[in-house]
Amino acid sequence: MSTPRPIAVLGGTGPEGFGLALRWAQAGETVIIGSRDAKRAQDAAEKIKQRVGTNAKISGNENIAACAAADFLVLTIPFEGHAALLKQLKPAIRPGSIVIDATVPLAASVGGRATRTLGVWQGSAAQETAELVPKGISVVAAFQNVGAELLNADGLVDCDVIVCSDDPNAIQVVCNLATKIPGVRALDGGKLENARILEQITALLIGLNIRHKGHSGIRITGLPDAAYELV
Amino acid sequence: MSTPRPIAVLGGTGPEGFGLALRWAQAGETVIIGSRDAKRAQDAAEKIKQRVGTNAKISGNENIAACAAADFLVLTIPFEGHAALLKQLKPAIRPGSIVIDATVPLAASVGGRATRTLGVWQGSAAQETAELVPKGISVVAAFQNVGAELLNADGLVDCDVIVCSDDPNAIQVVCNLATKIPGVRALDGGKLENARILEQITALLIGLNIRHKGHSGIRITGLPDAAYELV
Repeated sequence: MSTPRPIAVLGGTGPEGFGLALRWAQAGETVIIGSRDAKRAQDAAEKIKQRVGTNAKISGNENIAACAAADFLVLTIPFEGHAALLKQLKPAIRPGSIVIDATVPLAASVGGRATRTLGVWQGSAAQETAELVPKGISVVAAFQNVGAELLNADGLVDCDVIVCSDDPNAIQVVCNLATKIPGVRALDGGKLENARILEQITALLIGLNIRHKGHSGIRITGLPDAAYELV
Repeated sequence: MSTPRPIAVLGGTGPEGFGLALRWAQAGETVIIGSRDAKRAQDAAEKIKQRVGTNAKISGNENIAACAAADFLVLTIPFEGHAALLKQLKPAIRPGSIVIDATVPLAASVGGRATRTLGVWQGSAAQETAELVPKGISVVAAFQNVGAELLNADGLVDCDVIVCSDDPNAIQVVCNLATKIPGVRALDGGKLENARILEQITALLIGLNIRHKGHSGIRITGLPDAAYELV
């Protein structure tokens, strides 16, 4: 079932956002790539259209305009631009939107290593987001552990997506979006405070990729099939 | 190939330590269960002998005596007893020993939740350990993410063990010990500082177990087979 609500992938010209936009466009979703530069966003959308086909419901626009036209706002921006973008977006966020934060506060944001994270006062980038969005907007942490290389390749994505939020409804909606990516299983990971663990897992995976020359992801074992079923 | 060096599992009467001792005894290793109470340690060893067979090289002793007789010291104690035990053990640790820390600083240690961790000043319980052992003793973080239920059951353990240490040699030795548990794959996870991520993953897995009623573990996907090969 296609979600009738548009997905804006903000920072969607970067590899992670591009890969998510590609996968959702392939699944028939309506996707808007957002970028600081509308032209770059449109170019990225055009590339996806060439890859998916002319029926793909994909377009590109400047971040704020993309935000204003969407119901799902996916943040795939480097951490150093995270808070600033949210402040810009705030007036444009439509009531009832869900903000899906895939940001990882890598130390690389301040000249450190991509195998380390920064301490974020609120506990995680996603919890910082929860402070910066308008009241009543649900924030969901997800997709931090799905590597861009896997998303941009053609095959199945051999990775579980753990979805955390204080809004159980939003968890279900985002689990549903995640499973539109072939190969992905989605799991309710509990409250938004657990985002800190998802964010740190990314730093671990980056280290494993460097050390072992791969494109790593994670799978959770030992849970009943029902854990992956959707409402 | 059996490791000729005895493994002391300190806190080995608890479910995690008992499970590791059981698996290593099954693999033909020489294992000493350590406990505050020598009698409880001997009782646990006897239980393992009944399960593995009379040839099992398993015994039990008070923690300090167990430590003094072993080359691998596996810490499977609750975090609240972690630093105190290490201070007791310090004079008994033999030169050349490797300390393998499976401790997770769960908030449950101070009356909080098992789905949250405490902040440890050094970054992780394992890094605290590195401060408390004699100079020249290598500390390795491993086994935090392998649940006691899986270890104590009969089947394969469907879990990867990520092994972190500042001593690459010790990483190899502990990877070798980990793969003696049927089903386990072991991975070099880099420096000891990454232990903080392994420890937090345990809190996430505990939350998933509660939420989804399972005995979860993790597998890393997307790495070449060579990542799992041993020297």
